[in-house]
Amino acid sequence: MTPSVAVFGAAGYTGALSARLLHRHPSFDLQTATSRSDVGRRLDDLYPHHRVPLVLEELDLERHAGVDAAIVAYPHGAAAELVGELHRRGVKVVDLSADFRLRDAAVYGEWYREHPEPGLLPDAVYGLPERYREQIAGASIVANPGCYPTATLLALAPLAQAGLIGDVIVDAKSGVSGAGRASTEKTHFVTVDENISAYGVPRHRHTPEIEQELSVLGADVRITFTPHLIPLDQGELVSCYVTPPDGGPRKDTKSIYEDFYADEPFVELADRPPGVRDVRETNLCRISVHSDERTGRIIVFAVIDNLWKGAASQAVQNLNLMFGRPEGEGIT
Amino acid sequence: MTPSVAVFGAAGYTGALSARLLHRHPSFDLQTATSRSDVGRRLDDLYPHHRVPLVLEELDLERHAGVDAAIVAYPHGAAAELVGELHRRGVKVVDLSADFRLRDAAVYGEWYREHPEPGLLPDAVYGLPERYREQIAGASIVANPGCYPTATLLALAPLAQAGLIGDVIVDAKSGVSGAGRASTEKTHFVTVDENISAYGVPRHRHTPEIEQELSVLGADVRITFTPHLIPLDQGELVSCYVTPPDGGPRKDTKSIYEDFYADEPFVELADRPPGVRDVRETNLCRISVHSDERTGRIIVFAVIDNLWKGAASQAVQNLNLMFGRPEGEGIT
Amino acid sequence: MTPSVAVFGAAGYTGALSARLLHRHPSFDLQTATSRSDVGRRLDDLYPHHRVPLVLEELDLERHAGVDAAIVAYPHGAAAELVGELHRRGVKVVDLSADFRLRDAAVYGEWYREHPEPGLLPDAVYGLPERYREQIAGASIVANPGCYPTATLLALAPLAQAGLIGDVIVDAKSGVSGAGRASTEKTHFVTVDENISAYGVPRHRHTPEIEQELSVLGADVRITFTPHLIPLDQGELVSCYVTPPDGGPRKDTKSIYEDFYADEPFVELADRPPGVRDVRETNLCRISVHSDERTGRIIVFAVIDNLWKGAASQAVQNLNLMFGRPEGEGIT
Amino acid sequence: MTPSVAVFGAAGYTGALSARLLHRHPSFDLQTATSRSDVGRRLDDLYPHHRVPLVLEELDLERHAGVDAAIVAYPHGAAAELVGELHRRGVKVVDLSADFRLRDAAVYGEWYREHPEPGLLPDAVYGLPERYREQIAGASIVANPGCYPTATLLALAPLAQAGLIGDVIVDAKSGVSGAGRASTEKTHFVTVDENISAYGVPRHRHTPEIEQELSVLGADVRITFTPHLIPLDQGELVSCYVTPPDGGPRKDTKSIYEDFYADEPFVELADRPPGVRDVRETNLCRISVHSDERTGRIIVFAVIDNLWKGAASQAVQNLNLMFGRPEGEGIT
Repeated sequence: MTPSVAVFGAAGYTGALSARLLHRHPSFDLQTATSRSDVGRRLDDLYPHHRVPLVLEELDLERHAGVDAAIVAYPHGAAAELVGELHRRGVKVVDLSADFRLRDAAVYGEWYREHPEPGLLPDAVYGLPERYREQIAGASIVANPGCYPTATLLALAPLAQAGLIGDVIVDAKSGVSGAGRASTEKTHFVTVDENISAYGVPRHRHTPEIEQELSVLGADVRITFTPHLIPLDQGELVSCYVTPPDGGPRKDTKSIYEDFYADEPFVELADRPPGVRDVRETNLCRISVHSDERTGRIIVFAVIDNLWKGAASQAVQNLNLMFGRPEGEGIT
Repeated sequence: MTPSVAVFGAAGYTGALSARLLHRHPSFDLQTATSRSDVGRRLDDLYPHHRVPLVLEELDLERHAGVDAAIVAYPHGAAAELVGELHRRGVKVVDLSADFRLRDAAVYGEWYREHPEPGLLPDAVYGLPERYREQIAGASIVANPGCYPTATLLALAPLAQAGLIGDVIVDAKSGVSGAGRASTEKTHFVTVDENISAYGVPRHRHTPEIEQELSVLGADVRITFTPHLIPLDQGELVSCYVTPPDGGPRKDTKSIYEDFYADEPFVELADRPPGVRDVRETNLCRISVHSDERTGRIIVFAVIDNLWKGAASQAVQNLNLMFGRPEGEGIT
Repeated sequence: MTPSVAVFGAAGYTGALSARLLHRHPSFDLQTATSRSDVGRRLDDLYPHHRVPLVLEELDLERHAGVDAAIVAYPHGAAAELVGELHRRGVKVVDLSADFRLRDAAVYGEWYREHPEPGLLPDAVYGLPERYREQIAGASIVANPGCYPTATLLALAPLAQAGLIGDVIVDAKSGVSGAGRASTEKTHFVTVDENISAYGVPRHRHTPEIEQELSVLGADVRITFTPHLIPLDQGELVSCYVTPPDGGPRKDTKSIYEDFYADEPFVELADRPPGVRDVRETNLCRISVHSDERTGRIIVFAVIDNLWKGAASQAVQNLNLMFGRPEGEGIT
Repeated sequence: MTPSVAVFGAAGYTGALSARLLHRHPSFDLQTATSRSDVGRRLDDLYPHHRVPLVLEELDLERHAGVDAAIVAYPHGAAAELVGELHRRGVKVVDLSADFRLRDAAVYGEWYREHPEPGLLPDAVYGLPERYREQIAGASIVANPGCYPTATLLALAPLAQAGLIGDVIVDAKSGVSGAGRASTEKTHFVTVDENISAYGVPRHRHTPEIEQELSVLGADVRITFTPHLIPLDQGELVSCYVTPPDGGPRKDTKSIYEDFYADEPFVELADRPPGVRDVRETNLCRISVHSDERTGRIIVFAVIDNLWKGAASQAVQNLNLMFGRPEGEGIT
């Protein structure tokens, strides 16, 4: 039988896109979309281009927790409690927030606030399919990675595993949808247009998430991670500057990537630096790797669509794995 | 002695630009900038590129009404009362709102709300220098024109005076700064970027202002006026489709414009349709006029910078006239 | 058996998108993509986001004319000869150029140049499925409509058929992809960015195409049609100002549209003025209609994606009809 | 007497802006503007917003070399010969190309091609006024710095001089005007819009220029320099990641900058990361410096307008110095 699903927090950009992908998905039945801010509005009125003919409802766990699975698109901090409620009622959850990404509640506490549901952390799997495909398939809570960590980890995983990361600086550039749907001075068109600037300096919250996963891969480094806001809507580029431990790259950097990603359907390798347009509205990550012989550094570029692979389509990719569906169903 | 001036409502786009122009003006002494929303913030923190080292103050008429002149950049409705207070204390005022643009309080009431200061309407002069230069020089209240009326009236005045307007449709396009500094769904970067749509259909409030002034010029017509929001920050284009009363344009349309604007320092005539970039950050209006022999219509395009000629620099142009200064001082 | 297809002129924007849509189409087999400018380059190198792994070939009719159908994406003038060659060899053709849109070779001659293949004009069907669905199904040459005519005719057809068009002015706005892939001063980023201006004034070549089809619908009018270039890549808005013959709109304008488009899968009616984002990367046209009681006019807005419904996806829609496939196959 | 000046190569972006600044300059008399591509066109037709009423002429040294000074805006390689001719005729030159920036002809040969005028290299002064003010005043050839080196050197000079640069990575972002006026696939609106990507990887030609000047300042390092193209017209941001030699920043990083730039009229220090909008159409460079205690790195951001401080207004700043004028005349 087709599993039933709900999207909680569907008025924001990533929740609404999740609803669109599930609404058209051949193997899931989207039953409910809730909102805290826009109860009663139609999703296809808020987002005509998504064409999801659902009315946003107020959360009512009695009625809504009967689904087989849910995507939770709540802000950090607010998500954990709802994820806990759903989990205790037997609903499989993909959580788009940061609440279950960090395995160590103390680290979460340092970068966010006291964790509301630390007891659930051992149940959560980090939802980067290219790394944790098998664990995701059996998970009841999947912590969908942040957009920057998704791109950065896919960019660096081959080097990390090969022991080639002595030090790394990540300069990231994101379109404005990454800042969310809230209308603020920061997201006003006149602020962003013809502009570019860094933000979150020097402590952006995606930093510990990247370090945690690099460490698992064997690169126990402290990274410098600096995001910039650029005048476009969807798309994200990370430029990674890697200093290898022995002072120079090995000759076969490209083949390391080719081997590492040989069977990955959603990772593309390119010869030239990729543009964010190359992956717009896809679940793909496109990567190029370059050796700088003058400095001995390795430079890696990776692009994703922050709303797709960086959030909603990766969430559906995870749901596919959790329910035994083909990994790319509904997102290609 | 150098006249002292204040800008009331200097945190918004047009008020802040007014403050910048007056701060650098050789013949005015900007003493005060007030705000209702951002008291205590520095203008050069809100708008670094304006480089005005003033702290926004809370309005205090006892202290602030000692200036010789003021630019009031309050929203429609809220402006009238302050303008009245200043006027009664002998301050010369240029009002950026719509409150004193319509001569007839009943028309104002139909398109806005009941007029708060109808007794002052006879004292106000419509601040389009190209039309009312002499009256502005002697005025105590100048109603600075709306951005759309500024461009539209400069585009159509020569034809109106020549009796060539039988009917007219105005299709206007504006950058997002025209929607103001308020952060809303409408001004969110992701809403505007890669988008264009009409708004205010079919009754935009600038309609009666345009009709009033066309009527004074001899064209007693009901216009269709439709503005569109386009993905750029500053700039406005009006495309005017004129059907002459006798069904066809006279041969000498261009010479009518050349004669009409022969001595105007801030009106440029162009052979080709102008772009809004041509007048960015200037007090200029650039116009081209074209005859369509197939249909007998006259097509006129006019571009301005909505924040400059459409608001702040035209306000300074008016202040220059009111204080006997060269008309272009501080704005060229 | 799956029909084989070719795209001739696949290096341009509309040809490349046609190749992408056919490459993924379940009922056509894309065998060949040719180019005059980029022979030997891979399509997925030129357009990574299309992901079509074909090498662009030089045209060789002996080898390439064996296909069952073709989309020809050549410039106006250059297309007619190739369409003729293919037609004489029994290939069904959808032609993206203007060469077969005007039924009268004399009108074509007036707006373009002498027609190279006037003898074929009677064989060509105007490829607007919403108007000529049945004729397209049996056609051997389909003249795919221009992007502006597509949006304008869908906007105006209900009024034309209802006899409500006495006069009409069309103010159109298009993204830069409508200007094609050629790198010129006009398409340089710095020219377009933060700019907007009209072009093709007062005689744009899409004018006779619109007039021809409005005439067939019963509105024998001379239109004023003025396009503008706006700073976005894909998307087109037409704002249509209709003066009804008797001076005022009928009350039931909206119901006329609802009836006219009741069964059309690719036309959406909206209450508010649509934005081009609403239809980006779709075969949809979204329309709103408004009555202006002050002036007695009817205002109609219609948006399409100029590369999709304005060119490539409409071409595939036509191919579907010509080969008895579901009309929306491969483009929804 | 007012010195006479000419701009050679005035049809490109930086040459045209140079002509505009000199045309309005109170202390120079712009006599000639030449072009290799657009002889006979008016500058105010090519660039209406510059409002320079000159016709572009073909170069004729006999007639044109009578000026007191010239700005040469030719491409790299083509400039050297003209600079040589002018120099030999006694014309003081500011050269916008790279031809005289590298002191060592061998380094030039390695990154560009064989130097056409190596004998003149000792006569050239590197035109960064904040570093070489006195030498510029007495120079006959001034090599105007590249846009990236200008921003990067102003960002890093205080740290270099303080001995705080052990290693540095520079991630740069530039608007499209930096790619010049040539219409290419790379500068087509549709290529750039909604996109961002790196270019010149891993060997951009501005690298040796930055290293040369850092070395003079005491930082003898090999840098990693990676520029990115972003969808805006004017503006450039460099994000500099500095690893101090002893593994950690000193506490007083900010005061180092305050001291270093205390008397510089065109350098602003900011607390927050600056945006390129902050300096649009100015000769200013705005800098913020941040310590990352987790990693021991210093992060410096600097923004300039690539056409102004990155090219034309800095050239005029240099001309002012060469002719004893106030340094900011005509560019503030």
